[in-house]
Amino acid sequence: MIEAPPRETVDLQQMGRQAKAAAVELAQCSTTQKNEALLAIAESLDAGRAEILAVNAEEMAAAREAGTDELYIRDRLNLERRMDNVIADLRQVAELPDPVGERFDAREPRDGLRAWKQRTPLGVLGVIYEARPQVTVDVAALALKTGNAVILRGGREVLRSNMALVRALSGAMQRVGLPAAAFQYIASSDRALVGELLRMHRYVDMIIPRGGNGLHNFCRENSTIPVITGGIGICHLYVEPGADLDSALQVIHNSKTVSPAVCNALDTLLVHRDVARAFLPRVVDCLGDANVAFRAEPRALACVSADERVSPAGPEDFDTEWYALTLGLKVVDSLDEAIAHIRAHSTQHSDGILTRDMASAERFCNEVDSAAVYVNASTRFTDGSALGLGAEIAVSTQKLHARGPMALTELTTYKWVVVGEGHVRL
Amino acid sequence: MIEAPPRETVDLQQMGRQAKAAAVELAQCSTTQKNEALLAIAESLDAGRAEILAVNAEEMAAAREAGTDELYIRDRLNLERRMDNVIADLRQVAELPDPVGERFDAREPRDGLRAWKQRTPLGVLGVIYEARPQVTVDVAALALKTGNAVILRGGREVLRSNMALVRALSGAMQRVGLPAAAFQYIASSDRALVGELLRMHRYVDMIIPRGGNGLHNFCRENSTIPVITGGIGICHLYVEPGADLDSALQVIHNSKTVSPAVCNALDTLLVHRDVARAFLPRVVDCLGDANVAFRAEPRALACVSADERVSPAGPEDFDTEWYALTLGLKVVDSLDEAIAHIRAHSTQHSDGILTRDMASAERFCNEVDSAAVYVNASTRFTDGSALGLGAEIAVSTQKLHARGPMALTELTTYKWVVVGEGHVRL
Repeated sequence: MIEAPPRETVDLQQMGRQAKAAAVELAQCSTTQKNEALLAIAESLDAGRAEILAVNAEEMAAAREAGTDELYIRDRLNLERRMDNVIADLRQVAELPDPVGERFDAREPRDGLRAWKQRTPLGVLGVIYEARPQVTVDVAALALKTGNAVILRGGREVLRSNMALVRALSGAMQRVGLPAAAFQYIASSDRALVGELLRMHRYVDMIIPRGGNGLHNFCRENSTIPVITGGIGICHLYVEPGADLDSALQVIHNSKTVSPAVCNALDTLLVHRDVARAFLPRVVDCLGDANVAFRAEPRALACVSADERVSPAGPEDFDTEWYALTLGLKVVDSLDEAIAHIRAHSTQHSDGILTRDMASAERFCNEVDSAAVYVNASTRFTDGSALGLGAEIAVSTQKLHARGPMALTELTTYKWVVVGEGHVRL
Repeated sequence: MIEAPPRETVDLQQMGRQAKAAAVELAQCSTTQKNEALLAIAESLDAGRAEILAVNAEEMAAAREAGTDELYIRDRLNLERRMDNVIADLRQVAELPDPVGERFDAREPRDGLRAWKQRTPLGVLGVIYEARPQVTVDVAALALKTGNAVILRGGREVLRSNMALVRALSGAMQRVGLPAAAFQYIASSDRALVGELLRMHRYVDMIIPRGGNGLHNFCRENSTIPVITGGIGICHLYVEPGADLDSALQVIHNSKTVSPAVCNALDTLLVHRDVARAFLPRVVDCLGDANVAFRAEPRALACVSADERVSPAGPEDFDTEWYALTLGLKVVDSLDEAIAHIRAHSTQHSDGILTRDMASAERFCNEVDSAAVYVNASTRFTDGSALGLGAEIAVSTQKLHARGPMALTELTTYKWVVVGEGHVRL
């Protein structure tokens, strides 16, 4: 039986007040308390697994009936195949160091007057995402570990799965004596509520949209709260004539093929004209074997033999995040042209150079203004766990607060603490 | 003769494009180049001093004719009495360390794969301020030192003073071979242009409003660019019974009287009931001698003798930033009540405790969620130079990117640089 989605009115202002009150409590929690809560949540999800997955199965069935693509259901809606990971991740987050309370930038501006910055939670996070119910738990875990409350708004198709998850999360919090309102879910698919959430700067300190361009633009346009935009990657690699071409081929293959539907996957390959004729056919052969199709501009097209895997690039192709086994190919005359192309077409996510010339590498790294710049390495390293940050809530491509993968520290702010002995300033 | 203000149309989009192009150049400048430019600007202002001050004198005369308060003219419009400092500050900014290029958070996520964060300029700053023409030079100097271009929009009354300053700045840039478009001024008092600037996220990376609540709210409501709000301080000190009362009195006196019209000045004094009767009369005597007037809630009023300097607090008085020699007085029953009052009424700028009890001090610092929290020290230390940061462009009371005094580092972002030897991620 498929229940109708809940119809009660959502009182967002009330949710905001409760979240803020919960955040005050969470900010004072010890690391031990927060870790106990994370483990309690893991147990709660494990115990409630059958019930949660039953709801999720109903929602998948409804999506199937509505004609939703099976691949989408499997990749975006299905919770069952991820449940073990979700629970394991909670235990892993409990193991990570807690950034809250950390002191840095200590100084003594006057004799006996000590000042330092001390990390504190941000307060309340607003996270807006699409489908993928496991995000509900991932976000809640990272928010809890950093002492933040969170108001969640997920995709319509898995509303009831998300609510079942949040019930389990909140139940676990109550069991360990922490505020259940730390995790609140907007239980309505009314889009106007997103607009209202975005204006609740009185209660919410940061908005993290996780979705496509449309969602990011909507948040940027309508929010009075700081928005972390990101997660959209038109990524480039540029091959210089002196590059180790065998190694370059492996890096390109890895960047493109291992996980093409994530934001750090390669979209456009730029090749210097002096090496294009020798190298591009190898790229088409090697990546073609991995089912990659190519969109080549005229000079690149001229370097590869007629091949059904290669087609001429259209006008939008170098401004497209492929999310698929497709790769744009372009020949450039110089490092300058490569940098100019990247500056014009990149989403400032991840861009790299393949070279043996360290002067070129340095220029590339200085002049390409992206969240992550690479020399002789795969763009796939733009990821919290790949860079050793232990976690990732989002990849920021804007420039304030955090850039690139955001982990626990990026969910905190700091305050100045100044301790004197009656110090005055004349 | 007073010239009519310029009437040509302002093409903000064009300014944005030029600022962005200038920012690309500035980002590649060496520290030496930027310091030479700062010194050239100092010379340029010194050489152009007579001309600039003549324009400023005309604008002051016009303000006087329009009936503007003489104190306002002297404090807010007059450039002459500040010109020496403005020039000296430029030379001082040249001496400060350049944060751009600094590497931090270095790690080696795989053998031979090196990753670090590297400081880079933000790009283009949009700074909106009121009167005070010296801000034009201060902001330009800090932007230049950090490799950022800036679009400036100052107060209407000193439009021509500001334009004269910007001409001197841009001339100096051209002389040293740097882009004149690094500093651009919106030469119109049309308020619609502020709205347009706030939506130019394609070109502008950060908005810094320097003015009152109205300006901050307008920016928060209308900007699609991250806004650094701040600079508005309802500041508190709380006196515990065990405090060193002589020292406390000095700290209160300093926080209130030395510079009452700045954002870090004290607005409300909270006193524990056990010490109120002994201490409040001393506060009224001591600060009263410095011409401070008091607004006391009933219990505080009962502690001080009838005195024309003390009047009953009105309903808004504890939500007022006085900017004047006025101080709110309130008696509280406990540390909890003091913290609750501060959480409810503070603008999260600067709040402190005067105590000998380190447990109280720690609770206060942890639970008061302000940009700067103080123990036994004056709130006046919330200032870039007082904390030893060397400079200050603004005091942030929001929580993202930077909190408290913002100096050079806070005008930068970072990129991840990842250097491998053909590393791939499976």
